[in-house]
Amino acid sequence: MAQASSNLNTDESLGQATRIEHDCLGELEVPADVYWGIHTQRAITNFTVSGIHESDHVGLVHSYAIVKHACAMANKELGLLDAQKADYICRACERLERGELLDQFPVDVLQGGAGTSMNMNMNEVIANLALELAGRPRGDYGYIHPNDDVNMSQSTNDTFPAACKLAIAMSVKPLKDACERLRESFHSLADKHKDDIKLGRTQLQDAVPMTYGQEFHAFASFLKLDLIAMDELVPKLGSLNLGATAIGTGICADPRFRALAIQHIAELTGLPVSAAYDPIASMTDMSAYIQASATMKNLAVHLKKAADDLRLLNSGPRAGFADLRLPARQAGSSIMPAKVNPVIPECVDQCCFMIFGMDVTVNWACAEGQLQLNAFDPVIIHEILTGMRLEANAMDMFRERCIDGIEVNTEVGRQYAEQSPSLSAALNKSIGYEHAAQIAAQAVSEKRTIREVAKETTDINEHELDQLLDINKLSHTLHQTCQRIGEHR
Amino acid sequence: MAQASSNLNTDESLGQATRIEHDCLGELEVPADVYWGIHTQRAITNFTVSGIHESDHVGLVHSYAIVKHACAMANKELGLLDAQKADYICRACERLERGELLDQFPVDVLQGGAGTSMNMNMNEVIANLALELAGRPRGDYGYIHPNDDVNMSQSTNDTFPAACKLAIAMSVKPLKDACERLRESFHSLADKHKDDIKLGRTQLQDAVPMTYGQEFHAFASFLKLDLIAMDELVPKLGSLNLGATAIGTGICADPRFRALAIQHIAELTGLPVSAAYDPIASMTDMSAYIQASATMKNLAVHLKKAADDLRLLNSGPRAGFADLRLPARQAGSSIMPAKVNPVIPECVDQCCFMIFGMDVTVNWACAEGQLQLNAFDPVIIHEILTGMRLEANAMDMFRERCIDGIEVNTEVGRQYAEQSPSLSAALNKSIGYEHAAQIAAQAVSEKRTIREVAKETTDINEHELDQLLDINKLSHTLHQTCQRIGEHR
Amino acid sequence: MAQASSNLNTDESLGQATRIEHDCLGELEVPADVYWGIHTQRAITNFTVSGIHESDHVGLVHSYAIVKHACAMANKELGLLDAQKADYICRACERLERGELLDQFPVDVLQGGAGTSMNMNMNEVIANLALELAGRPRGDYGYIHPNDDVNMSQSTNDTFPAACKLAIAMSVKPLKDACERLRESFHSLADKHKDDIKLGRTQLQDAVPMTYGQEFHAFASFLKLDLIAMDELVPKLGSLNLGATAIGTGICADPRFRALAIQHIAELTGLPVSAAYDPIASMTDMSAYIQASATMKNLAVHLKKAADDLRLLNSGPRAGFADLRLPARQAGSSIMPAKVNPVIPECVDQCCFMIFGMDVTVNWACAEGQLQLNAFDPVIIHEILTGMRLEANAMDMFRERCIDGIEVNTEVGRQYAEQSPSLSAALNKSIGYEHAAQIAAQAVSEKRTIREVAKETTDINEHELDQLLDINKLSHTLHQTCQRIGEHR
Amino acid sequence: MAQASSNLNTDESLGQATRIEHDCLGELEVPADVYWGIHTQRAITNFTVSGIHESDHVGLVHSYAIVKHACAMANKELGLLDAQKADYICRACERLERGELLDQFPVDVLQGGAGTSMNMNMNEVIANLALELAGRPRGDYGYIHPNDDVNMSQSTNDTFPAACKLAIAMSVKPLKDACERLRESFHSLADKHKDDIKLGRTQLQDAVPMTYGQEFHAFASFLKLDLIAMDELVPKLGSLNLGATAIGTGICADPRFRALAIQHIAELTGLPVSAAYDPIASMTDMSAYIQASATMKNLAVHLKKAADDLRLLNSGPRAGFADLRLPARQAGSSIMPAKVNPVIPECVDQCCFMIFGMDVTVNWACAEGQLQLNAFDPVIIHEILTGMRLEANAMDMFRERCIDGIEVNTEVGRQYAEQSPSLSAALNKSIGYEHAAQIAAQAVSEKRTIREVAKETTDINEHELDQLLDINKLSHTLHQTCQRIGEHR
Repeated sequence: MAQASSNLNTDESLGQATRIEHDCLGELEVPADVYWGIHTQRAITNFTVSGIHESDHVGLVHSYAIVKHACAMANKELGLLDAQKADYICRACERLERGELLDQFPVDVLQGGAGTSMNMNMNEVIANLALELAGRPRGDYGYIHPNDDVNMSQSTNDTFPAACKLAIAMSVKPLKDACERLRESFHSLADKHKDDIKLGRTQLQDAVPMTYGQEFHAFASFLKLDLIAMDELVPKLGSLNLGATAIGTGICADPRFRALAIQHIAELTGLPVSAAYDPIASMTDMSAYIQASATMKNLAVHLKKAADDLRLLNSGPRAGFADLRLPARQAGSSIMPAKVNPVIPECVDQCCFMIFGMDVTVNWACAEGQLQLNAFDPVIIHEILTGMRLEANAMDMFRERCIDGIEVNTEVGRQYAEQSPSLSAALNKSIGYEHAAQIAAQAVSEKRTIREVAKETTDINEHELDQLLDINKLSHTLHQTCQRIGEHR
Repeated sequence: MAQASSNLNTDESLGQATRIEHDCLGELEVPADVYWGIHTQRAITNFTVSGIHESDHVGLVHSYAIVKHACAMANKELGLLDAQKADYICRACERLERGELLDQFPVDVLQGGAGTSMNMNMNEVIANLALELAGRPRGDYGYIHPNDDVNMSQSTNDTFPAACKLAIAMSVKPLKDACERLRESFHSLADKHKDDIKLGRTQLQDAVPMTYGQEFHAFASFLKLDLIAMDELVPKLGSLNLGATAIGTGICADPRFRALAIQHIAELTGLPVSAAYDPIASMTDMSAYIQASATMKNLAVHLKKAADDLRLLNSGPRAGFADLRLPARQAGSSIMPAKVNPVIPECVDQCCFMIFGMDVTVNWACAEGQLQLNAFDPVIIHEILTGMRLEANAMDMFRERCIDGIEVNTEVGRQYAEQSPSLSAALNKSIGYEHAAQIAAQAVSEKRTIREVAKETTDINEHELDQLLDINKLSHTLHQTCQRIGEHR
Repeated sequence: MAQASSNLNTDESLGQATRIEHDCLGELEVPADVYWGIHTQRAITNFTVSGIHESDHVGLVHSYAIVKHACAMANKELGLLDAQKADYICRACERLERGELLDQFPVDVLQGGAGTSMNMNMNEVIANLALELAGRPRGDYGYIHPNDDVNMSQSTNDTFPAACKLAIAMSVKPLKDACERLRESFHSLADKHKDDIKLGRTQLQDAVPMTYGQEFHAFASFLKLDLIAMDELVPKLGSLNLGATAIGTGICADPRFRALAIQHIAELTGLPVSAAYDPIASMTDMSAYIQASATMKNLAVHLKKAADDLRLLNSGPRAGFADLRLPARQAGSSIMPAKVNPVIPECVDQCCFMIFGMDVTVNWACAEGQLQLNAFDPVIIHEILTGMRLEANAMDMFRERCIDGIEVNTEVGRQYAEQSPSLSAALNKSIGYEHAAQIAAQAVSEKRTIREVAKETTDINEHELDQLLDINKLSHTLHQTCQRIGEHR
Repeated sequence: MAQASSNLNTDESLGQATRIEHDCLGELEVPADVYWGIHTQRAITNFTVSGIHESDHVGLVHSYAIVKHACAMANKELGLLDAQKADYICRACERLERGELLDQFPVDVLQGGAGTSMNMNMNEVIANLALELAGRPRGDYGYIHPNDDVNMSQSTNDTFPAACKLAIAMSVKPLKDACERLRESFHSLADKHKDDIKLGRTQLQDAVPMTYGQEFHAFASFLKLDLIAMDELVPKLGSLNLGATAIGTGICADPRFRALAIQHIAELTGLPVSAAYDPIASMTDMSAYIQASATMKNLAVHLKKAADDLRLLNSGPRAGFADLRLPARQAGSSIMPAKVNPVIPECVDQCCFMIFGMDVTVNWACAEGQLQLNAFDPVIIHEILTGMRLEANAMDMFRERCIDGIEVNTEVGRQYAEQSPSLSAALNKSIGYEHAAQIAAQAVSEKRTIREVAKETTDINEHELDQLLDINKLSHTLHQTCQRIGEHR
């Protein structure tokens, strides 16, 4: 019934060869040498907003090829798709999975249509690649059709979200790797300075002694939590809705297709995928995106905390905290000679601000679905993949050009610790909070240490005072707990 | 060493009896009959912004009392706190746990100081309640001291976050209950209409048939995901940092205190609590709040989806979709007589907008910690507890005054389904996408049904057409999957 | 034609007297002694989410009364409303304008229905107050009807937004007053310290000298910008849509009503009000709310900047910047005796986080209008009025309990200024940036001052060095500009 | 004093010629043929996060060249910069102003350092271009120095924000142009359908008659407000801080420089620029960015409103509103043949979600400044310029591919209008709201029109009924007001 839907043509005025394709709206010329077809061509013309193309999200092209691949295998096994054609389609998918032909995905990432343009772009490129393998000309859709064959048992409604979720799931690995590397750096720094005493500060006020090791270790612990959260995220992303087709009823798909296709996805990706339990609800459920974005936001909160703290601790060199020195990366000022600024943490902070904005954009897109579809998946996947790349880059930059070169001002740290008026807390048990407060107040006003004032104004003997105010011991009260932390590495 | 730090006094000019208390800043009059002391009194005067008091968050007062209770028991068992005093303190806590004396917590919820004012408010009220049990006057802190005794082995840094997380964890229950009730309502509605055919719409365009049951069931499925997310949240909230005291080193606390106190929390609450694995990191880690807020946001996305869809489906009565009728709750217009509006879903939507804003406020507060403390816990807990209450109320209102009264326009639904041009999808397998497209286009332009046009323009016989276009079957292709859904209830 | 629509009734079981009212949905008992009627009664029952009542927004009740008042006068003048009845209605409005009977506005602020409940609440209370003035019983709507008389020529669509905008416009005044007071405080502080030298810091690194006066003056300058912005906001809020009635076509209103009603609003409020230029567009245009929220956000950005800077400058007492001391407001720690924290700026920060979240909620509500109405005005006005009150309170608190008590560490400031390596910038003109950089680097590594190193390593003579490195002069290069600033006060 | 700071070198291993430059951190090889120098080279290596380069923001490179140009002229006139050198520098700037050499700006847009890298990139490229004009080799900074000559009287602190604000101000023009074009399209559509009656809907419920012209006109009116807002924004962006140099004290700059430089900016740009009134405050004031972002957000709210409404009005073709038909741009479904979706408005919506997220990112960056600088200008300018481009593109796309092709279903519109139960409002004046409500209720339940029921159940004679229910008149009650609207075009 279906006939060849395109003819080769040479546009002599442009000197560019074209072929004619048609769809339900009419005919259109497509450059003769491209693998895409009329649906892609219309979309190129229609969406002209961001200047960023589908091909920028390599991972999404990759994961979508896997989806098409898995579906073709399922269709073949169900006897719906001719084995020979299925083989051509699978081999075409494999080329895309290897990262080839990215330039065949030229549509704007902020496309309308809920991803239909990208789905048709995939269907058309795969169809023409398959036709090439079959020794047939581009556009010979009577033999392999983008919709009837490549898209068989599928709709955009089910395959686009599947590709999106797989793309995110596969981007978790590089994000985790960068996170793990940064965490290791913090741990190394912590190990190196595990016994170097410094002063802890709460609400920017002098508090009680701790070690540099504990401070750096905390940054590593934050990242441990993020790694765990990423692990928890992946199975949520793996809840796929293949076989649900349009609106989730499964129209045009054999009921056995769902399980088969998902099984093939599992084999092709090694990811923990499963069939969404309510195919109608899954069509518009955005939980996985919200959770992905929240996970990224939490990581950004942790990165910002580390970046901000390091900027504070590095403040100075003379009129600031000066607890430590970040490595000098570049001259800091066009006017103040030799000034060096904490440029790397400042860059990290800005990446975090981007992530915080991304979370709001994702919120919008997720909450604007209507009835049986949310048409805004494209902006969601664009934002999340962009954000994940940004965070991974930010962590590598942070580690290489900042954390690994940190030097600690141990003298400053120890001096601050010894002079803190809040050391008085160590006397609470012996003399009570109120008396200790008097000593602290006196120490501040007379610019003396707690030890000096306590020696004068209490009955505590010198040896006991040494014990009570031993800053090495004070910073390790929860020693056993700290050991336990070690195991978490 | 410690002496009575307050004296009874009668301020004759005001005619109000007061007692004098003192702290490191000096002396202050406190109303004689209140249980709070000087720290609370100063905080009342200091923070005058929101007009909302600690007592508004009943759950937080409750959970903080439990924290104090557990700590007192641990201190007693370690031999640090006199058994008799500990007993008075525990009995005082029990009164607060029962919801008594809420008016003794008058400080603004947006207090500065990282929760110190609320901690001291607890310490003072408990101390004076305990003194009362001991037959002693208020302010007789030489016997039971707010800091030395009630706050023993504790700081605000560890107890306030613990109380906050417990308060959220305990608010999960009523939120889940409301969620479960709403889910059940959607399920009942779905069951009632499981065979009533209607038209599915994607991108607001006529798509393919489904049932009202499927549509309502999807709303229930969303909530199932939220219930699961809430269950996953609770253990995160249960990661407590008791015994970490100031900045997390455990200064002033016996190392054995940590495990004991947390054990008592577990017993008093029945919640899955545990010791945070890095006491320094836990001091500034905000992951549990970010996750709580994201969980609430995801629920709000689901509620907004249901509210928005119902507003669309209820549009009309004549110039809209009219798929169903929401129950009339009130006259809708002051000028258009007998107009009835979907006021309940509109109210739900507004609650969701509040939650979306809350998530941003929480993001800010979580990302602004510095060094060894995040001073902004108070606004976080205020926002989250307020939001949880709002969401629970919104769900109950939604259910009682909207969902439970929905009536379905089955005739409209079936008529739409039969007339949809996208029914052509059912012909794809027989005649191919392109031919099916021609039929659909013709049907639209000639205002006929797919069946009518297909009968004329294809070779498919009438019986086969009946089979292919059977809207009952089309909406149940994934029947087995749907059965599986049932189990999830 | 219209008949008395209510009957007095005594509910003996409750012992509470009620009267029966009816509407298009049927009959309902209303407490006999309240001024509200059936529409309000239904709304009380319908909306049970926030627990906050219309009456909490005193300004909105006030401004809505003015709207009703102005409309009644316009209707009277057009001969549409009986003069005697109009007089009763106006007198009823005046009572509400005086702040009486707030307890008659019990509906939830997050009401669905686009404000219809609050409009009907106004209509009913005013009708019954007017009936009382006429010596008639409550509910005698045959004489004065909530819809036909009080709401004459009006709809919720036009009056609710008008009342909202007026309420915001009237809340600008107290917000400006608080802002002006805080600005004056910053100016006083600036004047007091206009010649006290300190070190400026960029990116938290030591930069070049400035004065404390300049630093405080900048905070005042920020607020000047906010005051200007508030002045620019008011006329935008004054763009009213009275007379547009339902959807903006003016149905049920005499075309002359629009100008007359707005003229009366101008007289009653003294505000620069005007008729919106496109009555259809104005119905759904949310620009004034977006701008109001942005104006409040910008103020919050400024307040947060001041609060954060002061927390930094106050850091210490020993291990921080210690440029200045904030007044001690309360003991800062339950465990660290005599620790004092910057609790007031921390409270200010939290108010700002609330405002940032509010801006997002307002964004949501503003962007979710559909067709001829945005139904989400109620949450917008609730958020904006709450936020304005919060900001005004925060500024007063900030001023009274923090800014006015700041003490400056002039010695610390001068010492930092003299020792800054970035003083080398002052040598750029004489020896070039690169040579100056060498001097700065040497000064840092040898822990000496720029002056010392420059004296040794350049040809600049001592007198010239004194001139170049005179920190008093350096901080006043733009002296004339600074004088100009003074005029802005 | 200054010496040539670079040497030519041929890196034989790479086969790429390099030159050596030095700075306060040491030496570094720079490719011999590039115009940038060591500061740029370090920044390229340091910031590796977004993959987007300064050169992507053509407008920012352009505006920064103007700033450098203006400063060089001012320095020349003050006799600070040799006239010949100034001339070379100005000619170099002109090349950049013409858009040449964009590839010389390769640093990541999310750079740390508050824009110092971009400032030094400008300084270096301009210095080397100027050296080329002087017939000297690259790196011969002894003759023209990036800092001493090109950056004379300047710092990053003052020039980067100036360039940013100018870049935004200059981007307002194309944004306004696109906005004006779209507005004109809406007006054309409105004119074409000014007498075509349709039904207005509030809260998605049938309300009262209006015209298609009014509906489209309202979209035009929204944009008029945005155009006004953009006009109001420009002078705020024109508040520049040149001459303020580091931290705003004007160190290293002649006090006369400020006015001169700004005068030259005015001449070079034609923009309404002025000197910021408080040079210290201006350094950290972000008001112009907040307002720019809010202005863009308000435009996005309007665009989303139009896009959403059109999606609703286009819903169908059979089971929706079907008030109008958007032009078909592409096949809408990979599975449902001939389905056509509103892809253009969906794309517009996604652009709006991006803008809403941008506003939050900008909020973050604006609110995180510390002390004498906000280091986060780079992310702000990146977001705002990206957003402005996105919005301009979205408006052109919306106009060309959607608005200009809209067709109206006049029959549907009229039919809905005649059948609306809310037409009963037109009877309020004659028979009162309550009686009219009875008629409306009866009309709904009996599926008849208001006219039919009113004829039967009231005393109103037929002629009067015709008058009262004339939908042409009803939709033009505020006719005079509407005429006035016309003038605003």
